[in-house]
Amino acid sequence: MAAITLSFPDGSKREFSESVTPEAVAAGISNSLKKSAVAAKVNGILVDLKRPIVQDAKVEIITKKNDEAVQVARNTAIFLLGAALKQKYPKINFGEAQSNNDGFYLDTDKEAPQVSAAELEDLQAIMGRLIKANAPIERKMMAKDDLLAHFENDPYKSSLIKAVDSVQIPVYQLGDYMDWGIAAMFPKASDLKHYHLLSVAGAYWQGKSSNPMLQRIYGTAFLQEADLAADLKRRAEIKERDHRTIGRDLDLFFVDPKMGAGLAYWMPKGATIRRTLERYIIDKEVAAGYEHVYTPILMNVNAYKTSGHWDHYREDMFPPMDMGEGEMLELRPMNCPSHIQIYKHHIRSYRELPIRIAELGMMHRYEKSGALSGLQRVREMTLNDGHTFVALDQIQDEFKKVLQLMLDVYHDFNINDYSFRLSYRDPANTEKYFDDDEMWDRSQGMLKAAMDELGLDYYEAEGEAAFYGPKLDVQTKTALGNEETLSTIQLDFMQPERFELTYVGEDGQEHRPVMIHRGIISTMERFIAYLIEMYKGAFPTWLAPVQVNIIPVKSELHLDYAQKLQEQMRKLGLRVQIDNRNEKMNYKIRESQTQKISYTVVIGDQEINNATVSVRKYGEDQSNSEDSNMFIDSVVADVNNYSRTSD
Amino acid sequence: MAAITLSFPDGSKREFSESVTPEAVAAGISNSLKKSAVAAKVNGILVDLKRPIVQDAKVEIITKKNDEAVQVARNTAIFLLGAALKQKYPKINFGEAQSNNDGFYLDTDKEAPQVSAAELEDLQAIMGRLIKANAPIERKMMAKDDLLAHFENDPYKSSLIKAVDSVQIPVYQLGDYMDWGIAAMFPKASDLKHYHLLSVAGAYWQGKSSNPMLQRIYGTAFLQEADLAADLKRRAEIKERDHRTIGRDLDLFFVDPKMGAGLAYWMPKGATIRRTLERYIIDKEVAAGYEHVYTPILMNVNAYKTSGHWDHYREDMFPPMDMGEGEMLELRPMNCPSHIQIYKHHIRSYRELPIRIAELGMMHRYEKSGALSGLQRVREMTLNDGHTFVALDQIQDEFKKVLQLMLDVYHDFNINDYSFRLSYRDPANTEKYFDDDEMWDRSQGMLKAAMDELGLDYYEAEGEAAFYGPKLDVQTKTALGNEETLSTIQLDFMQPERFELTYVGEDGQEHRPVMIHRGIISTMERFIAYLIEMYKGAFPTWLAPVQVNIIPVKSELHLDYAQKLQEQMRKLGLRVQIDNRNEKMNYKIRESQTQKISYTVVIGDQEINNATVSVRKYGEDQSNSEDSNMFIDSVVADVNNYSRTSD
Repeated sequence: MAAITLSFPDGSKREFSESVTPEAVAAGISNSLKKSAVAAKVNGILVDLKRPIVQDAKVEIITKKNDEAVQVARNTAIFLLGAALKQKYPKINFGEAQSNNDGFYLDTDKEAPQVSAAELEDLQAIMGRLIKANAPIERKMMAKDDLLAHFENDPYKSSLIKAVDSVQIPVYQLGDYMDWGIAAMFPKASDLKHYHLLSVAGAYWQGKSSNPMLQRIYGTAFLQEADLAADLKRRAEIKERDHRTIGRDLDLFFVDPKMGAGLAYWMPKGATIRRTLERYIIDKEVAAGYEHVYTPILMNVNAYKTSGHWDHYREDMFPPMDMGEGEMLELRPMNCPSHIQIYKHHIRSYRELPIRIAELGMMHRYEKSGALSGLQRVREMTLNDGHTFVALDQIQDEFKKVLQLMLDVYHDFNINDYSFRLSYRDPANTEKYFDDDEMWDRSQGMLKAAMDELGLDYYEAEGEAAFYGPKLDVQTKTALGNEETLSTIQLDFMQPERFELTYVGEDGQEHRPVMIHRGIISTMERFIAYLIEMYKGAFPTWLAPVQVNIIPVKSELHLDYAQKLQEQMRKLGLRVQIDNRNEKMNYKIRESQTQKISYTVVIGDQEINNATVSVRKYGEDQSNSEDSNMFIDSVVADVNNYSRTSD
Repeated sequence: MAAITLSFPDGSKREFSESVTPEAVAAGISNSLKKSAVAAKVNGILVDLKRPIVQDAKVEIITKKNDEAVQVARNTAIFLLGAALKQKYPKINFGEAQSNNDGFYLDTDKEAPQVSAAELEDLQAIMGRLIKANAPIERKMMAKDDLLAHFENDPYKSSLIKAVDSVQIPVYQLGDYMDWGIAAMFPKASDLKHYHLLSVAGAYWQGKSSNPMLQRIYGTAFLQEADLAADLKRRAEIKERDHRTIGRDLDLFFVDPKMGAGLAYWMPKGATIRRTLERYIIDKEVAAGYEHVYTPILMNVNAYKTSGHWDHYREDMFPPMDMGEGEMLELRPMNCPSHIQIYKHHIRSYRELPIRIAELGMMHRYEKSGALSGLQRVREMTLNDGHTFVALDQIQDEFKKVLQLMLDVYHDFNINDYSFRLSYRDPANTEKYFDDDEMWDRSQGMLKAAMDELGLDYYEAEGEAAFYGPKLDVQTKTALGNEETLSTIQLDFMQPERFELTYVGEDGQEHRPVMIHRGIISTMERFIAYLIEMYKGAFPTWLAPVQVNIIPVKSELHLDYAQKLQEQMRKLGLRVQIDNRNEKMNYKIRESQTQKISYTVVIGDQEINNATVSVRKYGEDQSNSEDSNMFIDSVVADVNNYSRTSD
């Protein structure tokens, strides 16, 4: 038989007989390498030490010092988790498993009661005992048919095995437990030292909501104890900020894939935040000269053919609906064509420009189901959208006005952590862009000049402009570390052409306006997700779903007074609740803090006699006695000042 | 040949040869009948006097004294309008024509300049000359092929003729002009005396928006001059109130079938009314203990299968969308299944009941395109929806609370013209309804008791209840005379069953709640259409899109002061505009009235010197001088009191 040639990272090459395992290769290099080896990479693919190499290849022996060893540790953890589950629930079945940069998961059909935190501890303990016992994990080749027979009662595993295109499949076995399809595992269970089971969540079998819901157990593993500790700390921090966790804990919203993937239900408290935000931004925009409209969320598909969305954006759009009589309707992915209809509804004069059309415009985008996440990535969203129609020489002024509005809004929300990115066309590839050199040069210059006039720092990104015009994006980061666009101002030379928009100039002739797309606080969904994470759920008073929580010391003695106080505050537009449950005072105060209510007010004899309230502001350690009217005035001021104290 | 037997309205019968015309039949009865006959009804179908009767039939001779003669007059008017158009525009083509209870119309492809009011007068004059000339209108039979050849240049007529299933077709001819397909016409042009051309509007050929747009000319005709005069007066009154006319004149909204049939675009002024209304009703409901939410407008079709809408309401629903991964989404036709999800999101206790979930819920219903009308009948609508979940013994109290809220709201809008209809199940057919006799009896009794407690008059409609429970409707009428439901309160025993809703009772057991569907101000679209008609466009100050219009006498002298005044009022939340156009003062004041602006304020030297304003309130004849601060206070009071002065 022919020999095979293996080449190594240091450039050296060695010849072997026609089939050799990485383990043998390591042993051939040195005994210490054989001992420290945990896996190998063959032509860049991670494999276990026993998988035969049968042709020429690049080979790298992986030890615990290599980055790839983390992957091996996580694969091992999946295997041992499976073994632990099987030990505890002999009839359990298994779905998909995966290790990745973030950790690992394993799907099972373990039924109610669902896996709890205590249960995770228990499973982790069983894994620990398996590791301690250090029984050999046997690797062997098995015929596909035999493997299928072994898993005949497990519909998920069977389905996965059937999809494999091999007759012989490598499997791992520990006692009764067997698994397969693992890229590479530690040679000994005791190599796995630093691992942790994190959480459980429902996951549909193969990601389809029509399939049964499985339990997905998440965990992670590392080579070093310090790495694991750092990771767990990081996770705790993310969890504390993650808008999905806070959204559930504060009962703000939920998404139920059974009812529709990426479709958010806003519970009363979340809805209150959203409504407050919507009124705020509309009032702000109306004061800034925007004319708010309502336009249909459906539009004839022809409009999107005119706009170009049908050709260039279709895979992000929902399927069109055939309404009969030749009408095809589309759930709009953008509001611009709708606002263009508003513009076109009248003959426009230069005297009217800039015309600023704004709307809280509901849109639908067909995001991939795997990309959906809480309120951050949804399929139905409502955008704080605005389109300004200007003459070419008004671009700079209008751009500056939008920027000023944006900064004003950021100030009200106390948003400070963001950066500006100004996107130009690529000067080396001008033919890739809307064809009007003068328009590009002038408008890019005007955008830059406006930024400079306002003294703002920005990054200039050549070649990052859209086809239809230059833009400014305001970038920020989510709790999970993803970069996100908070606000955007985009010039558009193209839509006015495509929809043949005109205005009558001072010269009596028809002219083409430029369109400015702008979003100040993006979508209600995304912005509130952002705010939840920024505030860690502790909304400033003006946005807080419950602003004041009144706790009467004794219901029979103090409830009346509490109700009068509530009524007095409600008339001023404040959101006030009374906690009159039959619970301990300290429990109620603690829960008021957990619920991140702005002010917790306790009413007892002393308060009633002195017309005072005992107030604890959110985040503070102790209560203060205040004159009740002065307290109410201070809450109203807090709301009116957007809770900013340092202006 | 066999004789035929004709029977007459008085019961008499007569025999005729096998083919006889109604004219001959009339002549056979009396010479005066022959003279006064204008058409006949053969087996109930209106035909002209020359159409042969070839088999046994019931025959009635129609004279000008019969009601049916109005139809004959209108058919004649269509024919003469066609002849007049052909005389004026020899190359004109014709689409569909129809006479009906409301008048008649004729479609033509007459191109721009569109038919104007002056043009209608001119056409009416030509019709008058044709009538005066009284040239004979010839009736003859024509082979279908010959008729097609005659109309070969008219694509619409040709298409209509091709659809006819006869070889020989009766046609009418006056000079060059020929038409066919007319049920019955006067024998002489001069029989038509009282007719009027009313208006012109665009109409798609065969009602499809993908087809060319034709010009539809509307008119009407009567036998008596007094009837025509009364009809024209009624039309003028309707037009004055019709929300579509006012909506266009005040630039409130538009619908463009090219963009989507039944989809409304709210222009800035209409949007301001809607926004004010939305904030009003939400605040009112929140104060009344409702928890406002936002829920997705899309839902998995399975939910509508559970609710029963899929089986019983599907033809009113939009086509479902296939999202892949086995998910079918439906634009919701109702909000109830969405609010049920909010209810089900938590385990509910009897302590929480009643739970009141409310939303401005957008819905989509597939109304027939012919039924669509302005804002009154649309395909996309936003409902002031609410669902209360109560224990059975809470029905009466909660029903009363909803009623009180409703009456309170009516009072704020000054709505007085309505009636209550209480709908019960049919006691003779209880098996047609949700099966729970005790629930029906108790709840119907509770509804009635609540109405009586509040001292309200109502009509009891047995057998008018929905399958799922009894209800109360508040009925009113539109400008066009159609009955409409303003508000509704419906009990529902079925959805809680179907969705398995429960609450934990005081006994610790699970109980089934009753659901109350209620809408106070129906949809934003329908209610604003109603308000436009009720107020004839003159909205009370709190709802008016522009509350104050300031007209500076001389721009260079008085604009500054006007702007200060505007700013002062805007800070108080008022909607104030300045009319600084280069137009005559009287023209501006007149237009301010035409636009139905609540207050028109003129600022000149005198006003600036005395810190006064010259104010004209909408609908009043003259202006008054008022102290400017007192004026501003009075406008704020007007807004805060919902413009009611007599409370």
